Amino acid sequence: MSQILTFLGKGGVGKTTTAIAIAKAFASQGKQVLLVGQQAGPGLSQMLETELSCDPQQVSSGLSAVHLQSTTLLERYWEKMKGLESQFLRTPFFKEVYGQELGILPGMDAALGLSFLRERDAEGKYDAIVYDGIGDLITLRMLGMPEILGWYLRRFRQVLTGSALGQALSPFVEPILRSILQVSSTDDITQQAGEMNNVLTKGLKAVNDPNRVAAYLVTTADPIAIATAKYLWGSAQQVGLTVGGVFARSEISDREFSPLPVHVIPDRPVELVIPSHMAADLAPVPVAIDIATKQVKLFLPTFDKRQVKLIQSGPEVTIEAGDQRRNIFLPTELAGKQATGAKFQDSYLIVSFA
Amino acid sequence: MSQILTFLGKGGVGKTTTAIAIAKAFASQGKQVLLVGQQAGPGLSQMLETELSCDPQQVSSGLSAVHLQSTTLLERYWEKMKGLESQFLRTPFFKEVYGQELGILPGMDAALGLSFLRERDAEGKYDAIVYDGIGDLITLRMLGMPEILGWYLRRFRQVLTGSALGQALSPFVEPILRSILQVSSTDDITQQAGEMNNVLTKGLKAVNDPNRVAAYLVTTADPIAIATAKYLWGSAQQVGLTVGGVFARSEISDREFSPLPVHVIPDRPVELVIPSHMAADLAPVPVAIDIATKQVKLFLPTFDKRQVKLIQSGPEVTIEAGDQRRNIFLPTELAGKQATGAKFQDSYLIVSFA
Repeated sequence: MSQILTFLGKGGVGKTTTAIAIAKAFASQGKQVLLVGQQAGPGLSQMLETELSCDPQQVSSGLSAVHLQSTTLLERYWEKMKGLESQFLRTPFFKEVYGQELGILPGMDAALGLSFLRERDAEGKYDAIVYDGIGDLITLRMLGMPEILGWYLRRFRQVLTGSALGQALSPFVEPILRSILQVSSTDDITQQAGEMNNVLTKGLKAVNDPNRVAAYLVTTADPIAIATAKYLWGSAQQVGLTVGGVFARSEISDREFSPLPVHVIPDRPVELVIPSHMAADLAPVPVAIDIATKQVKLFLPTFDKRQVKLIQSGPEVTIEAGDQRRNIFLPTELAGKQATGAKFQDSYLIVSFA
Repeated sequence: MSQILTFLGKGGVGKTTTAIAIAKAFASQGKQVLLVGQQAGPGLSQMLETELSCDPQQVSSGLSAVHLQSTTLLERYWEKMKGLESQFLRTPFFKEVYGQELGILPGMDAALGLSFLRERDAEGKYDAIVYDGIGDLITLRMLGMPEILGWYLRRFRQVLTGSALGQALSPFVEPILRSILQVSSTDDITQQAGEMNNVLTKGLKAVNDPNRVAAYLVTTADPIAIATAKYLWGSAQQVGLTVGGVFARSEISDREFSPLPVHVIPDRPVELVIPSHMAADLAPVPVAIDIATKQVKLFLPTFDKRQVKLIQSGPEVTIEAGDQRRNIFLPTELAGKQATGAKFQDSYLIVSFA
């Protein structure tokens, strides 16, 4: 397991410069660091003066770096999938399709990037992984995938099982599957589905744990850069990602991002002194559920009540804010209760239940 | 039908500023212009001093603007899909799922954004649509969707039809579908699939037509901004998108982007004089197939031979370059022929067939 850090902010504020400086500073402390770039073009390679590829390459003592190529990653995952298919299908049909011919559709970059981070994290070779992605909502969509994909799988399975379509299909599904798949029962398939769920749950836990994954904001003094950083600060909460602090490329008021610490970094951040504590466990957590007071407290800085929509359906509460939706499962103690009110107080949205 | 323009370049070089300036300049020529923003945060609203939403709002004479929210768009499309479902399914099951609870997965922004552009284009209300997206590979992935999605549909249908899985399923598929769907035969379903294909083909044609859709590069004199713009120039060809020129925020050498015209734009581009001809039909086209000389000519500026991979399989040639893959169907005259050589010449990759 590694500590994973990423940077959010408007384009051009110096996210990549900051990511490199932080990665180098970690390495100079004796840590093993992997810098993962996922932005278009040769920028990162040029800044590191190293021709990067999908395979980690040592840049300096303790620091390795990669530049993700979705074409290469997709080819590799496709081969793995074919391996899995040949275990299960009597007559595989994916094998007719070659990884080298697969184009990249929107969203694949995020899925491939997240898988890459997950694998490097699981390897345990690195103390820290610094991810330099596009650093805006796209990065948050990627980190939100385990939660949202998990929700879609649960929701549609539930609806399909209860539907006429599901009931009409069910007498056929098992015999067909058994005749095609090399399985003795649907248990084997259920097990595979369970493993998928397991990967998503683990990913969700990691994103929600500020000691495992944390984001930092990067901004200049430009009002639009500040407004974008604030928007992303609020949006990060919607995927359960804790923001640990702010790196400012010039002096800005501390109050802009209160209660986050603001670190001013020099223009040539070679001399960067990194904060003594880079885990974000001191920052406000995105969601807290208080059963005693029957309240759900959501940290949603920079949004106001007008920008937030709340929908309750069954045991779930949906929070819409910052062009994202988050579905929160209520604990059994609150699941049957009706939401009676919601108010904003000190950047928290507090929802009360009857 | 509208002329659709978009801007590509590194973050922070001034793509949004340029997009606004171009949109205003078009409007001042008496055109009806829609500016479509799809970037995180309130930046565009602040720059236009107008609170934008998903619905076009007039900003000034002839100029309207929207800021796309994927949550809102997804909700609207979900309602449409439910409408479609209730026409076809005897007992709809999507209706149990509400648009207001759907989270946004990676790739959805692109799919929703492209649908939005397609609908506004079809409306015929605007002479020009200026799309201000993230402006890097993400925008190209979006514009590449019609081609790549079309390829996936064809390829997997072909493989599935020929496979044991497809053959085992086929005796079941029709009766099941007929019992669930309100259709008398699978013809109705095939028709729906045909319409989907039709939409993709139309989209592809629009993206490939420089009079319909064109991109412009934006850069500063910073070497990394120039390198990124060049990379995106090459990458745009891979989705069949023509790049019509360069907007430079400071003086750069004309030769950097030869043969593209370079327009230097002032820091306060209120006074922007737009190029007399903004359609990109004078720029090199991405692909030309010459049957007489048995050659396929691909315009791939800024890439070299080392960065390009070529794979021939059946009637297709796959070009891998710039973290994209493009599958080109050869015309019948070349389909059976073996590629005998490939060389780079004046930014063109020339593939010869036997």
